[in-house]
Amino acid sequence: MIIDTLIDKIREYKNPTVVGLDTNFDYLPDNMKDGISNFKDAADAVLAFNKKIIDAIYDIVPCVKVQIAYYEMYGVEGMRAFLETLRYASSKGMLVMTDAKRNDIGATAECYAKAFLGETKVNESVGSAFDSDFLTVNAYLGTDGIKPFLDWMKKRDKGIFVLVKTSNRSSGELQDMLLQNGKTVYEYMGSLVEAWGQEYIGRYGYSSVGAVVGATHPKQAEILRREMPHTFFLIPGYGAQGGKAEDLKVCFDKDGNGGIVNSSRGILCAYKQEKYLGMDFDNAARQACIDMKNDLNSVIMR
Amino acid sequence: MIIDTLIDKIREYKNPTVVGLDTNFDYLPDNMKDGISNFKDAADAVLAFNKKIIDAIYDIVPCVKVQIAYYEMYGVEGMRAFLETLRYASSKGMLVMTDAKRNDIGATAECYAKAFLGETKVNESVGSAFDSDFLTVNAYLGTDGIKPFLDWMKKRDKGIFVLVKTSNRSSGELQDMLLQNGKTVYEYMGSLVEAWGQEYIGRYGYSSVGAVVGATHPKQAEILRREMPHTFFLIPGYGAQGGKAEDLKVCFDKDGNGGIVNSSRGILCAYKQEKYLGMDFDNAARQACIDMKNDLNSVIMR
Repeated sequence: MIIDTLIDKIREYKNPTVVGLDTNFDYLPDNMKDGISNFKDAADAVLAFNKKIIDAIYDIVPCVKVQIAYYEMYGVEGMRAFLETLRYASSKGMLVMTDAKRNDIGATAECYAKAFLGETKVNESVGSAFDSDFLTVNAYLGTDGIKPFLDWMKKRDKGIFVLVKTSNRSSGELQDMLLQNGKTVYEYMGSLVEAWGQEYIGRYGYSSVGAVVGATHPKQAEILRREMPHTFFLIPGYGAQGGKAEDLKVCFDKDGNGGIVNSSRGILCAYKQEKYLGMDFDNAARQACIDMKNDLNSVIMR
Repeated sequence: MIIDTLIDKIREYKNPTVVGLDTNFDYLPDNMKDGISNFKDAADAVLAFNKKIIDAIYDIVPCVKVQIAYYEMYGVEGMRAFLETLRYASSKGMLVMTDAKRNDIGATAECYAKAFLGETKVNESVGSAFDSDFLTVNAYLGTDGIKPFLDWMKKRDKGIFVLVKTSNRSSGELQDMLLQNGKTVYEYMGSLVEAWGQEYIGRYGYSSVGAVVGATHPKQAEILRREMPHTFFLIPGYGAQGGKAEDLKVCFDKDGNGGIVNSSRGILCAYKQEKYLGMDFDNAARQACIDMKNDLNSVIMR
């Protein structure tokens, strides 16, 4: 079960971190940006940057999360850099997560599921478009928009993370609304996710159907941890967005399992921080990963 | 205002239809599929099919909606076919809508907004990745995930359609839940959409911030039409999904404005229907568009 593979790797590295490759061209050091003026060269530069980041962290970080929006904005060439990034991280033994928050009605969700978790048939041939171990999805459309992902999870040992309580400031506008049954929208969404995950529970007691739960909302995270005992959390919002290690404690169980914490800009742009001044971007990223790991482990018992 | 351009075109053609280019390779006639066994050739065949569909309908249909999932599943080559489809439809004078249901926190939504409605900077150069007139979005994350799209709408005269009440069977699981304020989730989402649209209202009284409201839920559509007087509806679910013209009447005002109805498989695969037997796929598609237009106009007063 892919969730067990992820947890095994987190335990081996003693590091519940996923590095977000939200690689905006603007994040690159000047010497990688100079003279570039089109999408193809920008995408190549982003890919080269990503490869050096991966080289610097693959032996201490279990997983990368590639945020597809940062590649779509460079067009078809950006999508090629996205694909090559997935492949390179996989080739280095990392687990790869595509953060795409895809969602649609069943027939269309099936296409997204094929694209990121499954296979697409062309006559008698099959291929995988953007093969990932995990995909983030949005469940505003309910069960029949999620089912195709579940089916491919079963066939190819994949996982998903469903948006439950997101890390952004206005997440409460809909997600914190109270329903007549006394639950909030995010708790209700959490109950759907917990139910979808029942058939995918691995040997640590967590399901390959996970939930996105923002580090910036510790009170809500605590409620969700209690109400979703089999659901593994993907936790964005640490670092640049303001979430602190102390706030994350509630997401983890007494064995230190239960979640993986994302950091993107905090790692990719570490070389711009005073703390890492004078270091190359890749060395700075590695050091920032080590510092983040120590910070997390200071509060997460394991 | 782009919504006025759309309504003008609907009125000129007397046709409130958008054709969905959800072009699965499997939909193509055998002679376009034979011998093809990789994503590049499949994507080229899909693009060739799309071009013939566009050629057959551009003078009677105001708009195409390109469902990106059907292209992502053929990888980078699929994305190239997606881009070329957008460009070809635009070059024929059609309005183009990307159906991608994108959503994320502000900083990431900004990347999606650049990709589909805006421009991406590479040093001092700028380019548009997948330039569309309209984009569908999902607002589970609330206002700060929508704001970047609104900003680009203003800068480049674009529009969005926000998921409110989707056409699929399980849409009610979350969307029909009752909130403690007495409203359903879809009504509450509708009120957010109506508010976001206030600054984008054109001369027909409708906003460039529209809503997705499924044809398969006429009771809910009637409520939404009353509660969202300035919101134009993108209406999926007609035809293959079971929505009937009679059910759609409630989406339109007394002048026959207020919505545009999508059909995808019903047009693309018309050539497989007994009704159009013996016709080439493009001629069958054109005839199916004419039949759909007449069907809609029989119930929509204008």
